[in-house]
Amino acid sequence: MDAGYHSYETESTHTAGKVITCKAAVAWGPGQPLVIEDVQVAPPQKMEVRVKILFTSICHTDLSSWKGENEAQRAYPRILGHEAAGIVESVGEGVEDMKIGDHVIPFFQGECGTCICCRSQKTNLCQKFGVNPLKSVMVNDGKTRFSTMDGNPIFHFLNTSTFSQYTVLDSACVVKIDTKAPLEKMSLLSCGVSTGVGAAWNVANVQPGSSVAIFGLGAVGLAVAEGARVRGASKIIGVDINPSKFFKAGKAVGITEFINPKDLDVPVHEKIGAITEGGVDYSFECVGNLEVLREAFLSTHTGWGLTVLLGIHPSPMLLPLHPMELFNGRQIVGSIFGGFKGKTQLPKLAEQCMCGVGKS
Amino acid sequence: MDAGYHSYETESTHTAGKVITCKAAVAWGPGQPLVIEDVQVAPPQKMEVRVKILFTSICHTDLSSWKGENEAQRAYPRILGHEAAGIVESVGEGVEDMKIGDHVIPFFQGECGTCICCRSQKTNLCQKFGVNPLKSVMVNDGKTRFSTMDGNPIFHFLNTSTFSQYTVLDSACVVKIDTKAPLEKMSLLSCGVSTGVGAAWNVANVQPGSSVAIFGLGAVGLAVAEGARVRGASKIIGVDINPSKFFKAGKAVGITEFINPKDLDVPVHEKIGAITEGGVDYSFECVGNLEVLREAFLSTHTGWGLTVLLGIHPSPMLLPLHPMELFNGRQIVGSIFGGFKGKTQLPKLAEQCMCGVGKS
Ligand SMILES: [Zn+2]
Ligand SMILES: [Zn+2]
Ligand SMILES: [Zn+2]
Ligand SMILES: [Zn+2]
Repeated sequence: MDAGYHSYETESTHTAGKVITCKAAVAWGPGQPLVIEDVQVAPPQKMEVRVKILFTSICHTDLSSWKGENEAQRAYPRILGHEAAGIVESVGEGVEDMKIGDHVIPFFQGECGTCICCRSQKTNLCQKFGVNPLKSVMVNDGKTRFSTMDGNPIFHFLNTSTFSQYTVLDSACVVKIDTKAPLEKMSLLSCGVSTGVGAAWNVANVQPGSSVAIFGLGAVGLAVAEGARVRGASKIIGVDINPSKFFKAGKAVGITEFINPKDLDVPVHEKIGAITEGGVDYSFECVGNLEVLREAFLSTHTGWGLTVLLGIHPSPMLLPLHPMELFNGRQIVGSIFGGFKGKTQLPKLAEQCMCGVGKS
Repeated sequence: MDAGYHSYETESTHTAGKVITCKAAVAWGPGQPLVIEDVQVAPPQKMEVRVKILFTSICHTDLSSWKGENEAQRAYPRILGHEAAGIVESVGEGVEDMKIGDHVIPFFQGECGTCICCRSQKTNLCQKFGVNPLKSVMVNDGKTRFSTMDGNPIFHFLNTSTFSQYTVLDSACVVKIDTKAPLEKMSLLSCGVSTGVGAAWNVANVQPGSSVAIFGLGAVGLAVAEGARVRGASKIIGVDINPSKFFKAGKAVGITEFINPKDLDVPVHEKIGAITEGGVDYSFECVGNLEVLREAFLSTHTGWGLTVLLGIHPSPMLLPLHPMELFNGRQIVGSIFGGFKGKTQLPKLAEQCMCGVGKS
């Protein structure tokens, strides 16, 4: 969606404080086609921001939620979408770090700045605005800011709901970036790029000269590769059943070897063990599949191998690991939004991306 | 077993290079009573050491192996025992760091010093002499050094087999300590104390002022508490269904609160969450029970909580965690021998214990 930059501030003075009627893609039920229709977007309340979405993309999490794979997450009608960029249309009471016309990125993993987790350097999991697929209303008042033209509520999604020309965000879930940054690219920082690059930088802390295996070469997996490349990993192995992903984009982000599990007559982890003298230092599971998770885990070197979990596993299933396998010194850790604290770290990441993600 | 210190070196000159006949407690089958009987102990081969065991104790791992809980581990007849201290009776070719009469501690988690893991600072899991419950013979030649009086092999256990007046160890699995250290206490460094203290120091890296929950107050759990106390943890919660463990030994090692799950009408993790503002920084599972493991995991704070797994889970079962639960920022990690590299670190730990485990 590109609503254009032109004469934005003039336009905004007409809408601030009022309900905006605009187009949104509404999900009415699991797997049902999204319907582009008129919706009403209420003004931002205290510590909220209403954003005109200029660019938004579809990420895997939108798809799985749209399909309703996890029953508990079903709240309909709902506006999906969480990877986007836009311009502040108006701000609610108390918002001081953003104003009308600012270029902003929404992010699903909020940062309130004051809870015990936000104050800790060890985590980016805000206790107040952390991502929660079950959450479908605003924190302030437990209500929605979206409604149908006849006044029925339309639910929110992942603190963001960007499949709308206008959306209302908690100010903890949106951050101002440099006006010179190209918004159509910055949109990717809203999920995929941050999630992947951050997993390599913040969560795994990939070291120069190390070896990396990435399972699943979608947007997130490729961003992991880019993050690992920037950190100086000497071996970056991409694993995907679709070889075109390697030839298209893999080499550009520094993938040094490609493995197609379908070409092998041994499990992937055996192949990786063989070409890395016992396993990689880090593996990244970007698929959301338990068998792949297990292969990723076993692909790391005993003693210090770290598996970073990025894929979403919708159903409540057990980790496919035996307790005793943890005694081999391999570790496994989950990564949300690449460990980035959105409010304090995204503006810098945006700058880095403007110069090409060249430095970590 | 206390065979006495007297006139040891004189005695040893008579036995070096010869087969020694001595008493050992032999396990003939799963759950069958150990039989104290005469066995033959061959001289140490290249890079091996024959040790006169002066003190040995029974640890939980001996019991579970004796019961034969894991079929794959059954090798009979076998000499169990892995927590001990003794004196070098003789050394095989190439052993330069120990000589006849040295006071030594055997340890099941060997350190060859040259493999990729031994050269790494990230792990104590030696690739050559790492603990392996399936291993029942010497690395050198795949044979046993024990035999019955009629010449049939008796198998080894955990690189140690200390339930014998004499045992033969790979030199990578035994280390010289200060002659002034009291061997009857140093014996505990061979397993329980190292395992517990090291889990707090090396694996969890417990920080001053932090909170800790320890599930299972056996020898290992109490050693974890001591390790956490030395590190300055401000809250050390002991969890055990046997309250006497707390009153007897718990307070001495710094446990500040005791929880008996039987006294609660909520799950333990809820109780711990309530008294720690959301959970402890570190939890330690010293029981080897999957339900306890899950409680230990959930007892930590989201965002940064670390669960250290010390208990042995004999059957191959899945970790009782959903993949998505890792996205709460909690981590789980296994700990073998407290992360200590036995050869290089035990002598210093022995010194610290002589002065009371006062410094980490
Ligand atoms: Zn996404
Ligand atoms: Zn917060
Ligand atoms: Zn033990
Ligand atoms: Zn080694």
